[in-house]
Amino acid sequence: MIKVAIFGFGTVGSGVAEVLDVNHDEILKRTGIDIEVKYILDLRDFPGHKFESKVVHDIDMIINDPEVLICCETMGGKRVAYDYSRRALEAGKSVCTSNKELVEAFGPELIEIAKEHNCSYLFEASVGGGIPIIRNIMNCITADKIESITGILNGTTNYMLTKMDREGADYAEVLKEAQDMGYAERNPEADVEGHDAGRKIAILSSLMCGKNVAYENLYVEGITSITSVDFMYARKLGMSIKLLGQSQMVGDKVAAMVSPCLVKKRHPLYMVNDVFNGILVHGNMLGDAMFYGAGAGKLPTASAVCADVVAVAQSMGKHLSCNWSAEPAKQMSVDDMTKQFLVRVKADSAAEVNALFGDVTYIDLESQPQERAFMTDVMSEKEFADCYAKLTGAISRIRIA
Amino acid sequence: MIKVAIFGFGTVGSGVAEVLDVNHDEILKRTGIDIEVKYILDLRDFPGHKFESKVVHDIDMIINDPEVLICCETMGGKRVAYDYSRRALEAGKSVCTSNKELVEAFGPELIEIAKEHNCSYLFEASVGGGIPIIRNIMNCITADKIESITGILNGTTNYMLTKMDREGADYAEVLKEAQDMGYAERNPEADVEGHDAGRKIAILSSLMCGKNVAYENLYVEGITSITSVDFMYARKLGMSIKLLGQSQMVGDKVAAMVSPCLVKKRHPLYMVNDVFNGILVHGNMLGDAMFYGAGAGKLPTASAVCADVVAVAQSMGKHLSCNWSAEPAKQMSVDDMTKQFLVRVKADSAAEVNALFGDVTYIDLESQPQERAFMTDVMSEKEFADCYAKLTGAISRIRIA
Repeated sequence: MIKVAIFGFGTVGSGVAEVLDVNHDEILKRTGIDIEVKYILDLRDFPGHKFESKVVHDIDMIINDPEVLICCETMGGKRVAYDYSRRALEAGKSVCTSNKELVEAFGPELIEIAKEHNCSYLFEASVGGGIPIIRNIMNCITADKIESITGILNGTTNYMLTKMDREGADYAEVLKEAQDMGYAERNPEADVEGHDAGRKIAILSSLMCGKNVAYENLYVEGITSITSVDFMYARKLGMSIKLLGQSQMVGDKVAAMVSPCLVKKRHPLYMVNDVFNGILVHGNMLGDAMFYGAGAGKLPTASAVCADVVAVAQSMGKHLSCNWSAEPAKQMSVDDMTKQFLVRVKADSAAEVNALFGDVTYIDLESQPQERAFMTDVMSEKEFADCYAKLTGAISRIRIA
Repeated sequence: MIKVAIFGFGTVGSGVAEVLDVNHDEILKRTGIDIEVKYILDLRDFPGHKFESKVVHDIDMIINDPEVLICCETMGGKRVAYDYSRRALEAGKSVCTSNKELVEAFGPELIEIAKEHNCSYLFEASVGGGIPIIRNIMNCITADKIESITGILNGTTNYMLTKMDREGADYAEVLKEAQDMGYAERNPEADVEGHDAGRKIAILSSLMCGKNVAYENLYVEGITSITSVDFMYARKLGMSIKLLGQSQMVGDKVAAMVSPCLVKKRHPLYMVNDVFNGILVHGNMLGDAMFYGAGAGKLPTASAVCADVVAVAQSMGKHLSCNWSAEPAKQMSVDDMTKQFLVRVKADSAAEVNALFGDVTYIDLESQPQERAFMTDVMSEKEFADCYAKLTGAISRIRIA
């Protein structure tokens, strides 16, 4: 019997309790492991709740109980979650977390502490919700050199962009709707400005190269400037617009960024719609593999936390190693990355477009006679930015995946 | 240093040698394991080949060499491959295979022999080529009850159906093209009659329920009757036609079959085109997750075999257990499965359609005035078959996913 404690009885934490309860027999049957939740740590009481008797308010009860072998950290935030995770690991208890902020900021440090105390720090649920993307990168695609990872990593913005695409709606409108439906928060900045996707691509990039890719060093652009007219051009081109986290090994450097991108119809990520996530991993032998599923939500995310619990339980007394050191990865400057762009310009800009970008083919929208758009060649971000800055008729630009 | 032998230097076998050679340092860096191919067993010599010096013709050399710890069986076929695999396992050498016929027919037996001799029998490459689907079911989605698995499991037929969809081409035409391009064999029966997909869904079904699902007991229907007119209806309905392996737990029974199915545009498998495979796994907590990638091909398949080699190498001296016993699974009769059907009928069949299927809504194609089609309600296969047998104006029917 493996006893588990849950830190934080919010959405994900209550999901973890539910998964371990409902699937207790199934997990026992499939893996031979008998797992039971002993404590649920929360500031609140839950009178009348099925798990009321397991609720405690004192972290020391858990840390000092030698029966507890695994802690699920589903609190979120960085300060208290860090402190509790660290104390659990130092007491030799493995920690399984859904907390991407903490993993992104302190992953290598907490992994190292786990190693020193012969336990594990696992974080499957921190990226891609229920999609087992971390385990696929770490334990499944093991005979390949992973050359790039590209993902739709944020369900809220994907829901919004899907709605803009299908309904021709504008940004403000779909944001309000997403907020009303509870998909977006009242302060939606972490999602719509790309920070959430940025933390996730930083974690995946670190696992790809084995060193630490700091989110702070990434170029991150959100979806707040995307309009219904952008989608008109996308549709005319047989494309859609997605918020992509992209990361690629270029020699020994990691080229990672987050931005909205035009995605072609035959691209595997084109069909990843609504609140779903999709992550494309390219291996040097495997080629492209894509992993698709619910990127958020109580039960899918809890399912991922619980899969970590099972992995730890199957390897009790052993540190599950992780290819992510604290050594900073060499990150390529965004200036040096190369991309293709769609540029929207005022209709009378032909001369300056020609001077700056050479011969281009225009895409015209009947409904928007005052403007047109063209695609650039593949060029460096720096070279593009310089030309774009000089383009007085410029309306906006968007990258092409 | 872990020494490996490869049985069979054909497409996949030579791919395994290449992956272990090219990615030697990457595998060492990521997993700490130093893997080297010591022998390649084949009837032929390969004069001038890079690996010429490793080629041997005598299985005994390998079986009797205590340095060889892992054998990759990439021969195909059932007789010799079974014999060699068995002998390797009995000598305590783990076997990693891409041989789906052997795995489907003798999986539980070979797993049991591996267990008795404290080594492992792994078969990631037997389903889905490079897609790590076996490892996802066995080692990643471990906290869920897997309720269903639905997959596009055969690249050849998916290539053909994609071409029929995109180009309006007819079956015979695309088969010839696929044969000319080397995607389909001169004797294409195993692919086009659904046997290959059947073996793969049998393996996945066995892993889902932990007991043995025999391919011989599955209802398997291929794509040989699919025509360009079927695709006209599909397009009119916003759907495509895919050859699906479907398997579902219904109580303690497994309901598994292979057949062409109409697939809606928003279904995650809709966009799995060309030679790619996609497998949708539904967990009771996770919901839908999809795994997508190259379902065949030298290097992707070899990448999967080599990932098995790494898994074995990381667990030397330990049997990697597999939830697949020889006990026959309870399989639901196809008669009892429920489905929805699209039925094509002669234009003048309204009265009998009405009598047999009640009120229906017709789909008409301008180019085919002599016929029309309608969708049934969800009904049992038996009930449908009985009505369909009585329908004198029937042209054909196809299931809806």
